[in-house]
Amino acid sequence: MAEHFSKRTATCGSLTKADDKKAVILNGWVHRHRDHGMIHFINLRDRYGITQVIVDDDSSKELQQVALSLNLEDCISVTGVVRARPASMVNPEMATGEIEVKAEQIEILSTCAPLPFQIDDGNVPREELRLKYRYLDLRTEGMKKRIKLRHDTVWAIRRYLSARGFYEIETPTMIKSTPEGARDFLVPSRIHVGKFYALPQSPQLFKQILMVGGMDKYFQIARCYRDEDARGDRQPEFTQLDLEMSFVTRDDVLSTMEGLFGYVFKEVMDYDLPPTFRRFSYEEAMNTYGCDKPDLRFGLELQDMNDLASRSTFATFKEIVAQGGHVKALCAPHSEIVDFSRKYITDLENAAKVYGAHGLAWMKVGENNTINGGISKFFEGLQGEIIDRFDAKEGDMILFVAHKEWKKTCASLSAVRSKLGKDLQLIRPGFEFCWIVDFPLFEYNEERGQWEAAHHMFSMPQAEYIDTMEEDPGKVKGDLYDLVLNGYEVASGSIRIHDVELQKRIFRICNFDDETAQERFGFLLTAFSFSPPPHGGIAPGIDRIVMIMAGESSIHEVIAFPKNTAGISPMDDSPSFVEEKQLEELHLKIVYPEKKE
Amino acid sequence: MAEHFSKRTATCGSLTKADDKKAVILNGWVHRHRDHGMIHFINLRDRYGITQVIVDDDSSKELQQVALSLNLEDCISVTGVVRARPASMVNPEMATGEIEVKAEQIEILSTCAPLPFQIDDGNVPREELRLKYRYLDLRTEGMKKRIKLRHDTVWAIRRYLSARGFYEIETPTMIKSTPEGARDFLVPSRIHVGKFYALPQSPQLFKQILMVGGMDKYFQIARCYRDEDARGDRQPEFTQLDLEMSFVTRDDVLSTMEGLFGYVFKEVMDYDLPPTFRRFSYEEAMNTYGCDKPDLRFGLELQDMNDLASRSTFATFKEIVAQGGHVKALCAPHSEIVDFSRKYITDLENAAKVYGAHGLAWMKVGENNTINGGISKFFEGLQGEIIDRFDAKEGDMILFVAHKEWKKTCASLSAVRSKLGKDLQLIRPGFEFCWIVDFPLFEYNEERGQWEAAHHMFSMPQAEYIDTMEEDPGKVKGDLYDLVLNGYEVASGSIRIHDVELQKRIFRICNFDDETAQERFGFLLTAFSFSPPPHGGIAPGIDRIVMIMAGESSIHEVIAFPKNTAGISPMDDSPSFVEEKQLEELHLKIVYPEKKE
Repeated sequence: MAEHFSKRTATCGSLTKADDKKAVILNGWVHRHRDHGMIHFINLRDRYGITQVIVDDDSSKELQQVALSLNLEDCISVTGVVRARPASMVNPEMATGEIEVKAEQIEILSTCAPLPFQIDDGNVPREELRLKYRYLDLRTEGMKKRIKLRHDTVWAIRRYLSARGFYEIETPTMIKSTPEGARDFLVPSRIHVGKFYALPQSPQLFKQILMVGGMDKYFQIARCYRDEDARGDRQPEFTQLDLEMSFVTRDDVLSTMEGLFGYVFKEVMDYDLPPTFRRFSYEEAMNTYGCDKPDLRFGLELQDMNDLASRSTFATFKEIVAQGGHVKALCAPHSEIVDFSRKYITDLENAAKVYGAHGLAWMKVGENNTINGGISKFFEGLQGEIIDRFDAKEGDMILFVAHKEWKKTCASLSAVRSKLGKDLQLIRPGFEFCWIVDFPLFEYNEERGQWEAAHHMFSMPQAEYIDTMEEDPGKVKGDLYDLVLNGYEVASGSIRIHDVELQKRIFRICNFDDETAQERFGFLLTAFSFSPPPHGGIAPGIDRIVMIMAGESSIHEVIAFPKNTAGISPMDDSPSFVEEKQLEELHLKIVYPEKKE
Repeated sequence: MAEHFSKRTATCGSLTKADDKKAVILNGWVHRHRDHGMIHFINLRDRYGITQVIVDDDSSKELQQVALSLNLEDCISVTGVVRARPASMVNPEMATGEIEVKAEQIEILSTCAPLPFQIDDGNVPREELRLKYRYLDLRTEGMKKRIKLRHDTVWAIRRYLSARGFYEIETPTMIKSTPEGARDFLVPSRIHVGKFYALPQSPQLFKQILMVGGMDKYFQIARCYRDEDARGDRQPEFTQLDLEMSFVTRDDVLSTMEGLFGYVFKEVMDYDLPPTFRRFSYEEAMNTYGCDKPDLRFGLELQDMNDLASRSTFATFKEIVAQGGHVKALCAPHSEIVDFSRKYITDLENAAKVYGAHGLAWMKVGENNTINGGISKFFEGLQGEIIDRFDAKEGDMILFVAHKEWKKTCASLSAVRSKLGKDLQLIRPGFEFCWIVDFPLFEYNEERGQWEAAHHMFSMPQAEYIDTMEEDPGKVKGDLYDLVLNGYEVASGSIRIHDVELQKRIFRICNFDDETAQERFGFLLTAFSFSPPPHGGIAPGIDRIVMIMAGESSIHEVIAFPKNTAGISPMDDSPSFVEEKQLEELHLKIVYPEKKE
């Protein structure tokens, strides 16, 4: 162990030919070690790069012995002299490939136990091991790049917003549990027996209260918490850019975000986004892509086929249309990669059925504007119109879903579209943002038999619906907007209600009577009685956006210390049992569920 | 309620003479309203400033009526025309004092309920009201300034560190409870029955693990949590700049901080700090100022008086010195503000007694280098030496504390020094930073009868003490450092241990046997077996530093939504009771303490 050590005078990524003959000290880890008898080539690594260190055959016996004893990942300090490599030895793939450092002394700062896996980006171990030994995983080039990408991204966000008059304001993370409380993590109070704080699912109420307080433009890179069952890529704690603005309408928030992400992508990745993003109403997005988070990196737009279905002789379709249902189709282009075999069509059909489709009908486009196979025989005389609708070519495949419910028709065909996009390799590289607007304000929860807020209860209904919204909540559209990137929802926001009475009406539609609303949201309602300004905001998810920027498919890749899908951190083994004394102090007893026999 | 409203084209702080005759829309709150019959002067306020709006006697009846109906703090939109004020009406104290806006239309965006207190910086209501209606309190000029100051400060910190290769990395806030666990807030896991996460008291272990992961330079503006009993100015959650660096020694961390705060104070307050801060060893600080967080904005240094006490005829002092105790004194200068009456000296004595002093002895400096009164008679023949030691002048007062314990002598006289600094108005304006270094690594806990880490268990002992530290832990000095500003400790840090065996020895001295250490800190010990780099760091407290910058004496003034001293948020009334269902899902039962009869 070294209390004193030879401190670096340069990093492992900084030396060039210009440093030839310079005496230097490098500190870092043994990344590679080739031992050619009396000559050692040691690749020394730190956060900044890799430098080749040479222990030559003219070195002292002592130095030779130290070199011989080195294990991969030992942490060392190398004192030596830079020498330019001869032209033939220059490694153009290394930033420091023009030089090497001839070691004069090597000090071992700390040694490395046998590695559970090799630190090698080409060889990614299973995730449980990566999480348990995250500090070793962080040493890989990939993790280092992603941690830097995240820093760069959040840093660019702060630059953009701070330059535009936004204040970053910290809001509390120990707050009151709200009625969506089912998903709240609770924190027992030791001093106030029987009472709890909750960890915030978002700073929603506080950012609105900041607007009531006149803060005008607020943002925060905020930690948020949600106690959900393990589901895909969720984390119990996650990070969002929380943002709110006063005296604005929808388009102000949208253009602020367009400016922000344009800046961030240019600064961080040198990638040009368009100055504005495409906007779809919710209905339009559903009708065109089958979903409200479309991946615009490929086409395969859906077409409404109700008219042609009615005129066909296909009883199933005709009946569905007659009953007010929907027939939609898309056209998969002829492909060299995928043959549209029966088996493949069955795979597509299975993808559709997950979302409620009864089946997937198809027809193939033949030569000379003909259609054949599948349900083509029912469309006698309609070939030309079908082909025109898709501008279809020979070898293309037209795929149909019909269902009495609009949402299920859309969602099923969207699943087919997604699978085709991937399988046919239609997805263009790059980043495609779009806005989805004009969402329904309420959704009917069949299970509970009641209306619920589609986004949250603080969003403004569009003006034309306000007077009569109780009559048919399902029809009410809200001033809601989602930001979508490459098929992921990456942000969600709205113009907020700033009127106590309107807010109470929304609570009532969502089945909170005035008393419950008062108990749970009284402080917001009180705040709203003191002249809140019109305001609105949005909350982009940092984890997911950085994940997409990094080209990854799991947010684990862009979080330094993620929990696994069971909410466990394999490194520190949290959550864990605590001492009985701690529970006593909190006045808590654990009630273990009875074991089933 | 306004779904659509006339959106501002300017802010209330932006208009000048150059905007004369411009048509504008302003949005804001009614700050003042003077009603002169048919003429209304309305001071309209937003985050950016105040603009005077005029409703003239030539206005429409409708506009007159709206103006008449306005209450203070109503939120309104004003459409009007800028007009330059005649020279005689220019208000040089207002940024917008050169102009006013003649209203053509006023739209009420939302009305204000009767105010619980006036929004007026000259009239600060009691804190409980301020916290309950924090959104109103935030509308005051003072709170707005401090929220901006905090934003500016943290933003400058990020600029400085990001430009110097530090990555901001988020560490988890749901972690394993550690043995200092007594102060952990716990979060019950719903999925893993009987297990808990803890909220971190700091990211200490994670930042060290980031160093093991090769991240080299890390920082984070980190939320931290501590479940302490209500005590002064503590908050259950607070914010620190958490920072760690690899391959560094103490002076690297210190100079990084000097550069950082030099930059921040210059950028944010245009205040020049010296390029380096004064450094005191712990012993030196105690001997000179009586405490380890000295306020250097005034003098009143302590002097060791053991030599003169021995040579005096004062038995009490002589005895204490003979027993190895300490006699210290300071010299309070003659003052126009405070007469050194018996009563005042008793006040000083009482301040000293809080810290263990048995009493406060005194003597007065007379004319012609004489001393008189108090214990002067015991110092016959020593007058000259006493006066020289303090360079004392006529009218000065020399105050003595004697105690067998060094710490109590120092602390008692430090309390006297602090009181004198304030009462005699000796405290210079400005900011005085200093470092305290060479702290003892261990402290003996009399109550528990064991050694404890003075800072925390991960700090490096200084090299010379390592081999023999078990022999006399009290003697061991650590590579610890505190940053002090104007008498407050504002940061604490250390060079860390990066050797498993040394770390285990520290655990053992602090009474953690290997098994307990393994159970609680196993993951750190494991991490340390994989070649950790030498590393060290520091953690300045953001709340406190911004408080001092703002010239305030409570951190409540610089936190948007603080809890009160009982840990309660009067605004949202957290902590609160939760639904029985929530507790059931968490498998928890509350055990109410039995009522005492």
